[in-house]
Amino acid sequence: MIKLDFDKMGGLLPTIVQDHQTGDVLMLGFMNEEAWEATLSTGQATFYSRSRQKIWVKGETSGNLQIVKEIRIDCDNDSVLLMIDQIGGAACHTGYRSCFYKQVSNGSTQNIGKPVFDPKEIYGK
Amino acid sequence: MIKLDFDKMGGLLPTIVQDHQTGDVLMLGFMNEEAWEATLSTGQATFYSRSRQKIWVKGETSGNLQIVKEIRIDCDNDSVLLMIDQIGGAACHTGYRSCFYKQVSNGSTQNIGKPVFDPKEIYGK
Repeated sequence: MIKLDFDKMGGLLPTIVQDHQTGDVLMLGFMNEEAWEATLSTGQATFYSRSRQKIWVKGETSGNLQIVKEIRIDCDNDSVLLMIDQIGGAACHTGYRSCFYKQVSNGSTQNIGKPVFDPKEIYGK
Repeated sequence: MIKLDFDKMGGLLPTIVQDHQTGDVLMLGFMNEEAWEATLSTGQATFYSRSRQKIWVKGETSGNLQIVKEIRIDCDNDSVLLMIDQIGGAACHTGYRSCFYKQVSNGSTQNIGKPVFDPKEIYGK
């Protein structure tokens, strides 16, 4: 039986998404218990959107689903690591491969992202 | 000028720590603004401990400091990725290399961690 600590952060677990082949960190999302159960039962990364306050299957709009290959949880049972296969090659809603496309150097950030799709075409706005 | 969104989570940013050479995800911590500034100015990963409610230089007790090699921030400026060099080889207070040493399979977890040190010897309890 897996006992996750959802209480520590008001029902949410920070969840790291990593490409299971390259090791690239693609995004960080949050899961509530329903999203966790859905991820386990469907094998597709599912999160809780704090801004929209609802369950959200990653890629449900763009088609860029994340197929779960391996799941790990941490020492304190309060963080999750999903190792996934990124359908469509891009995890970020901006069209970049990874959400972490801003590199910090000397007090500013530099965009080092790899554009995969044009968000205007995918989301229609 | 780097503008991080500390407001979204009550002053804290979830921060992923990744080995800059192997790509292994080692831990997830939280930074408040003071921890972020300290990380930038010292080059050592510094967090805010939610349980102890104070700033915490990773490795200050065990000696297992994390030397920051690269910092990335995400699309929404609300998550940080630290790519680091793990002094002593272990990030987890349990003595494992990574905090994510529990692999989920078939409704239970399996310990796949690599023990690096004995926490009883390091923390003296």
